[in-house]
Order: sequence, then C-alpha cells, then structure tokens
Amino acid sequence: MSGDEAPSLWERISLPSIPKEVGRKISQLEQEFVRAELEQLRKQIPVLRPLYARRNALVASKELQDADFWPRVFANAPQEIDEYILASDAAVISQCLKNLTIERCDVDENGSGGDPRSVRFTFEFATGEEENPYFTNAQLVKEFHYRTKISKTPKGKRHVWEGYVSTPVRINWKKDQDLTKGLLDAACDLYEAEQKKGAGVDRTTLPEYEKLITKLEEASAEADALVGDEEEEADEEYLPGGVSFFNFFGYRGNTVTAEESAAAEKEEAERWQKIENGEKVDDEDDEDDDEDDDIDEEEESIATIEIFPAADDIAVALADDVWPNALKYYVQSYEVANDFDDEMDIEELDDDEGEDDEDRPAKKVKT
Amino acid sequence: MSGDEAPSLWERISLPSIPKEVGRKISQLEQEFVRAELEQLRKQIPVLRPLYARRNALVASKELQDADFWPRVFANAPQEIDEYILASDAAVISQCLKNLTIERCDVDENGSGGDPRSVRFTFEFATGEEENPYFTNAQLVKEFHYRTKISKTPKGKRHVWEGYVSTPVRINWKKDQDLTKGLLDAACDLYEAEQKKGAGVDRTTLPEYEKLITKLEEASAEADALVGDEEEEADEEYLPGGVSFFNFFGYRGNTVTAEESAAAEKEEAERWQKIENGEKVDDEDDEDDDEDDDIDEEEESIATIEIFPAADDIAVALADDVWPNALKYYVQSYEVANDFDDEMDIEELDDDEGEDDEDRPAKKVKT
Repeated sequence: MSGDEAPSLWERISLPSIPKEVGRKISQLEQEFVRAELEQLRKQIPVLRPLYARRNALVASKELQDADFWPRVFANAPQEIDEYILASDAAVISQCLKNLTIERCDVDENGSGGDPRSVRFTFEFATGEEENPYFTNAQLVKEFHYRTKISKTPKGKRHVWEGYVSTPVRINWKKDQDLTKGLLDAACDLYEAEQKKGAGVDRTTLPEYEKLITKLEEASAEADALVGDEEEEADEEYLPGGVSFFNFFGYRGNTVTAEESAAAEKEEAERWQKIENGEKVDDEDDEDDDEDDDIDEEEESIATIEIFPAADDIAVALADDVWPNALKYYVQSYEVANDFDDEMDIEELDDDEGEDDEDRPAKKVKT
Repeated sequence: MSGDEAPSLWERISLPSIPKEVGRKISQLEQEFVRAELEQLRKQIPVLRPLYARRNALVASKELQDADFWPRVFANAPQEIDEYILASDAAVISQCLKNLTIERCDVDENGSGGDPRSVRFTFEFATGEEENPYFTNAQLVKEFHYRTKISKTPKGKRHVWEGYVSTPVRINWKKDQDLTKGLLDAACDLYEAEQKKGAGVDRTTLPEYEKLITKLEEASAEADALVGDEEEEADEEYLPGGVSFFNFFGYRGNTVTAEESAAAEKEEAERWQKIENGEKVDDEDDEDDDEDDDIDEEEESIATIEIFPAADDIAVALADDVWPNALKYYVQSYEVANDFDDEMDIEELDDDEGEDDEDRPAKKVKT
C-alpha cells in the first residue's frame, strides 16, 4: 500500500484468528485444489514430453554443442540456483556439461498415475582426458521422489510430512580434483553402510556417520575461514559459503520407502474423503501446536546428515523454472553478453546480491 | 555464482550471437511450447471452475463475510499489486468489497476454444448508504481480452503485437468521493466519443482527448507535488505516486477487434506452419532491428491515453497469483497479524520497499 494522507481502514481488519469451522472448510478446499492441480500437471507431462525430446535433440546437435547451450543456461540461471555455484563449479559446468534432461519420472506414459513432483536429473558430461580433467562419469543421474510420511508426535498426535527422498550419487573424481573435498564420498559411504545393515539401523552408531560429521565440521570451519566477515549473514538453512554445488548429488531427504509413502497417501486420501463426507475423523493434525517442536527435532536429526540442505529447493527451481524456460535463458544469455559493455561488472558494484532476484536475467554472464 | 579464488571459466562462454539457423529453430520450438502451454491452460480451466465456484460460495457465506475475506487477501497481496493501492483505496476495499470473481472469459465450457489469457474481473460491492459512502455500483465488471495485431513498420516490415484490449468502465462516484479525481470519467468520455464517431476516427482531434490530456497533466503535477523528493525514482511505466487504484477500470490497451485479432492469429499460425514445413515465408519479423523505434512511437501514442498503464500487469498478477492463491493469502493474513507484535512496523523501518518482494506475505496487514 502506497502512503498518502487519508486514514487507513486496513486497520479495520482485526479479527484475531480464523473461526475454527471456517478454517476446516478452507483446509478441505485447499486440499481439493492441490489434488486438482496435481492431476492437471500429471496430464500435462505426456503432452510436453515430445517437445522436450525435440529440444534435447536440438541441444545435442553440433551447432548447439559448439554454442554452449547448457553452460549458457546455467550461467544465466536465476539467483536461487546461481548463488550455490562456485567459480570452480562453473569451470566444470562450462567445460564439461554436454546435456541435461529433467524427467517427471514417476508419471506413467498416459499421465494417469504417479506423483508429478518427482523428478529425475540426467547430467551428461564430456569424458575425454582433455575434455574432462575432473571426473570419469559420463552421466550423473539423480532422482528426487516426492513422498508422504505419517508419524505420531511423542504425545500421540498425528504429523504429516511431505517432501523429497533421494539416494546419494557418487562422483568418480580424478586424483586431487574432488570439489566436494570428500564430503560427497562420505555421504555415499554412510548411505551404503546403512543399506548393508538394513532397515531400522541407528545410523549414529556407524563409523561412517562419525566420519561424515567430521567432514561436515571441516567443511564448515574451512568455509568460515574462507568467508570471514565479508559476506552477508549465512542462510541458516545452508552451510556458510565455499561448499561445492556438486554436493547436490549427496542429498537424501527423509527416509520413506515408496510402499510406506503409498500407504500414507492412501490414509490421507481416506481421511480427506471422510472429512468431505462430514464424518468425524479420530484425531486432529497437530498443526499450530507447540508440539511441533518435537517433530522439528526429529527433522533436524535428518538434516545433520545432509551435506547440501538446499538441494531440494534447487531441484524444484531447476525442474519448474530452468527446465521449461531453458530456451529463454539461453537466448537471454546473448542479450546479457551484448549489453555487457554498457553495464560494467554490476556484480562487483552491488553489495547486496541477495536482493536483486527481480531483474533476473541480467548480470550473470561474463564475456 | 558465489565468489571463490579459482579462475572462472564462465568467461569461456564468448560466442557473440546465436547462429542464425539455430535462432530460427529455437523460435520455432518456443512457439510450439507456447501453443502447448496455452492448450493445457485451456483444458485446465473447466476442471477448476467448480472448485472456484465452491470457494466463491464459501466466501459469500456469512462467516467469511464477517471475516473480511477479500479485504484480507488484498491487504496481504504481493508487492506488485500492493504498491498501487493507496491508503484511500484500501479504505474503500476494506469497507465495501464483498466479493471478487475472476473468470477466463474467452474459454468455452469444454476448454476447446478461446484464449485462456483473457480474464473477466467481477468486483461486488456493498451498496447501502452507510456501507458504501463512495459510489453506487453494486458490481464493476472489467474484461481484458488477449489479442494479436499484425502491422507493417514504415519501411514495410512485419510487426506482431500481442497483449490486452479492454473497455473503460465507469464508476458512479457519490458527490466529492471520486478517488480518481475525474481521470476515470475523462477516459470513459473519450472512449464513448470515439465509439460514436466509429472506427478510423483520429482521437487526437476530439475535445474529449484534450480534456483527458489536461486531467493527466493535473494528476501528474499533483502527484509530483505530493511526493516531492521523498519517494524513490518513479517507475517509468507508471505515473508518479498518488494515483488511485480505481483508475485500473479505465485501462484500454491497444485497439484491436476480436475479428481483427482472429485474422491475425490465423495468419501467424499459418506462417508458423510454413516454417515448420520448411517452406520459405515471404518477410521476416523485424525483431532486433532498429526500426523498432517507429513502432515504439506508435505504442507510445497509445500509452498517452492510458490513465493506469500498469493495469495489464496487475490484471495478470491478480489472475495468475492472487486468484489461485487467495485461500493461502487469506490464511497468511492471520499469521502476519499474529506475528505483528514482534515485528513492529517494518514498512516504516524499511526504506527500500521495492526490493523485498521475496518475503512476500510479511508486513502488510496492520492490526
């Protein structure tokens, strides 16, 4: 609201909280909107697949390989991704990234089933000795599966978690080239050790857990030393600067199998159906309750093994923004480059990078 | 890209411009993506209609009328809308706005035809003497039709315009209550005079045109005086502060009839089909050509009769963000209100309002 001198009746809005019955109706309707939107998204996916396949073929053509398609898209990516790409990561991307494919991997061919929020990233890299001095993988495939988990708080209340579950993916770094400085390997080692022990193992008892924690502490200390007081306050959700983007491949999220998730989704759907029918459901969700704290603790213990906690947000930004708009970002990368003489290096002039998300395509590509 | 000490190979990306043939293939593919997305959007609309109807019924219920549904949503709207709402506009909205319906008015019942970007806004207001001291309209209905216009530049090159066309809507203000200070009436008067004269009239020869220009100059001078040096630099696309949000109803956009637009769309579709078939099209678009200047002038002459040039962007923000997320904005308005004691009045502390779009739901509702 712009300021002017008239008295603001915005102040009239003063009801302290949503009436309970109204709140219930709103939640129910919101739930139906979410379901309808997922259904639409699901149907849309098979329709767009052939277009993405044609785009991929175009990107794989010699003309566009010579024209650095994906490196240019990444160089011009939105701030929320770009801020996690170190200069050393950018070197690898610009030299070695040949193609990227993002698929809604859980949706079937007809768009009739599967969660459309699940995504598979297939990064393709150059492999020649000269072309890729960093690692030997020709492909890195990373999947994020959207899952649901229902648990009880210590006081017996129902708690519904929704989010991504992912398996860490190892990179075969060449000697002395590991940009993650052993962090990704440690995360993969822990995951594999847990798999060997089987479900129910307390990961904190494993030697690989100790090793990962040590690596995380080292990375954190090193980043602190590197960054000093220069940078703005670190995002709480993220290790302070200096951690390689390639730790993205180590993300795990919560531990929920596809079967557990399917059962939880079924339980949720039946619960909403009951509410819709006006039937009573046995227990309330614990939303807006201070018992949330207990759950937060549980989620924090998951987070301590996360070497790159922002990976789920980055996955969403890549899948929902960069992937559908890749042609636009690519074309813009030339406009930015051409404007560059006029603009000087704004990044150096601008202290407060975090705030300029709005004028996105600007200022990224250095020519 | 975060800074660290390694040399940046982002600099390797140095091709000066997109190879012509590649550029053509990209435009073609982009065109197909746009078509596919419009098609999806079109199909989605009939599916969501019943849900929106149920939401509207809920909003119209006594419980939610008492709970100020739409006033709360507006009070918590994203910055791009909120910045155009003066305190005096907010007073009217919070006291009188009873309901708002946004429809994709050009899409038929089956989602098989019509442009899904066209939108109709139906604002419903209280009408009692006490309930609405401002104007007598029980409803204000404003339509934005998405249209295409193909024209030739003075040098004979093809130019394609796409955007909104709208008819100004008069508000019957009560005595001395006109928040637009005659601007909206002047815009409606000009439009009606043009309609009377029929197609092809040069509007600049009409006395109503002179009158509108005078009103615009008055509003601009008054706003300058009111604002002084305090505010940040005015957005070029918008009159400097102090202009009522209710001028939104005066928006016109370009002058294109539904028939002209249908013909232009057909021409465009056929042209793209030819390109797809590898046939030669007779004339190139004039993109990236300095002849654009000629067109800009033409568009500027349209803009001089626009009393609220941001209305098309606001229409998109309302239709694509506020309308689908209204329940969320409503629920958030309570959270904001409850957090408010802790947060103090951040708006007063924060000089640089324009930059905080990111943390959207915060700081809007004053309790």
